[in-house]
Amino acid sequence: MRLVTYTVNEDPARLGARIDDRVIDLSALAAHHGTALPQDLLTFIRADADVHDTARRLLAGDPSGRPAEAVHRLDQVVLHAPLRPGKIIGVGLNYVEHVEESSRSLDTDKELPPRPVLFGKPATAVTGPGQPILHNGDLTQQLDWECELAVVIGRTAFRVSEEDAYDHIFGYSIVNDISARDQRRSGQWFFSKGQDSYAPFGPAVVTADDIADPMNLDLELRVNGVTKQKSNTRHMLFPIARLIADISSGMTLEPGDVIATGSPSGVGAGMVPPEFLVPGDTVEATIEHIGTLTNPVTDAR
Amino acid sequence: MRLVTYTVNEDPARLGARIDDRVIDLSALAAHHGTALPQDLLTFIRADADVHDTARRLLAGDPSGRPAEAVHRLDQVVLHAPLRPGKIIGVGLNYVEHVEESSRSLDTDKELPPRPVLFGKPATAVTGPGQPILHNGDLTQQLDWECELAVVIGRTAFRVSEEDAYDHIFGYSIVNDISARDQRRSGQWFFSKGQDSYAPFGPAVVTADDIADPMNLDLELRVNGVTKQKSNTRHMLFPIARLIADISSGMTLEPGDVIATGSPSGVGAGMVPPEFLVPGDTVEATIEHIGTLTNPVTDAR
Repeated sequence: MRLVTYTVNEDPARLGARIDDRVIDLSALAAHHGTALPQDLLTFIRADADVHDTARRLLAGDPSGRPAEAVHRLDQVVLHAPLRPGKIIGVGLNYVEHVEESSRSLDTDKELPPRPVLFGKPATAVTGPGQPILHNGDLTQQLDWECELAVVIGRTAFRVSEEDAYDHIFGYSIVNDISARDQRRSGQWFFSKGQDSYAPFGPAVVTADDIADPMNLDLELRVNGVTKQKSNTRHMLFPIARLIADISSGMTLEPGDVIATGSPSGVGAGMVPPEFLVPGDTVEATIEHIGTLTNPVTDAR
Repeated sequence: MRLVTYTVNEDPARLGARIDDRVIDLSALAAHHGTALPQDLLTFIRADADVHDTARRLLAGDPSGRPAEAVHRLDQVVLHAPLRPGKIIGVGLNYVEHVEESSRSLDTDKELPPRPVLFGKPATAVTGPGQPILHNGDLTQQLDWECELAVVIGRTAFRVSEEDAYDHIFGYSIVNDISARDQRRSGQWFFSKGQDSYAPFGPAVVTADDIADPMNLDLELRVNGVTKQKSNTRHMLFPIARLIADISSGMTLEPGDVIATGSPSGVGAGMVPPEFLVPGDTVEATIEHIGTLTNPVTDAR
């Protein structure tokens, strides 16, 4: 299932599934079939597996059996960030070539990190597809991009082994891990990566059963149509299972939490000369089987 | 008002006000007077000023007028963390003598930081008064303490000036900013400071009107009764108003968010030789006019 959070007109946000160029409202579809499904993604994630099975079964039914009130054309809805995560855990320096470019431009170590490099982004940083990335020229002249596979947690994880890690994943999405490189504070990344709009998230959460191998997904980021990042998740230094085992060794992962699994090389700070985002730019982050997350950069002074 | 979140027996947590050795249930007190007040602190914080005024007025009434069902002896209730913050923003290196001891022991800069050093702690790190700080000897041999004044946000703050900063504060509490010093990851503090139980919080939130000068509060931390930290909030490098202005320049502060304003000197890593917490220890963090936050350290392997 390719799950989206959407609005029509000024109505409250609802949970839908995207199929081709249609968004199917899960709750309305369920009501038509005499059953019930949640109206928001976080409640859906927290629900039991049989709720997920019901959704899957109803969506697989004959399209002609869908009631009109449950079907929207994609161009008639506005997509939003899929959910507001309890926490977003970022992983730094998780692609080998990005470790190298960072050591040249961002005073990080040349050596590969021996353990995952973890940092936090607050929920207030989340913004949806199509929403602006806020460029405040009074605060930063070094606004940068990072296309990352987002792992959305489905079941509470504490001290989970690598073997069991995938049992705790609900699905996958995209996070563009925006940084104001010049707002690191004595080396800490929280303010440089945690400002409002610095976590574009979406456009959909694709459930784990629909991603055959999350460790083999092409990812690509373009600025104004020009490719800046192009890699594959197989090049992660610490793979997804290791990240979940490592984080959950000390920190409980809860349903709806998001792990942004790190950026490949090709960030602006690593270019020669460096390139950064300015108002008027458009950033597109694409991950195979998930989609494209597009955000304009706007002047927010 | 000295607001607490408490339980009696196995009942759900409720919002109370501590007066001497009594906890007064706000919702039950209000019902007795034919009005209504929220049953949890976050809802109370988000409510309008007249709701806060109602609570203040009812609590100021004659104690003999309180209905029995609204009054508990302190020793009959269990106190919990006052609330689950949307985000906890920690401030590093915010007391001059702590900057010095950190540069000796924690590879931070000798120079005073030119801007507040900010980091995040996730809500899953929060634990309540009396609850254990989890010592996992497989992960850390350097579990350390930091007694900090916690500022609890009352009104949404984005791009707030220092002059207006105090209008956005609901009240004050204590956070013990626990760190596993040996779990920094390429310099990032998120995993070293963000593990479960690493943010003891409480025992109360004292509303801003009851703290005459938050920039002049004695704070002290004891381990097994021995004083380790002793200072006053007037020694903060970046005072509270500056922190709120700085953070909100890029990051929206929401009601219930917490700023842990930094630790004075006297952390374990700065001792000669270094001292760290071990199972069996008891840590008490005291801040003038707020109270004492006491937590045992337990073996959590």
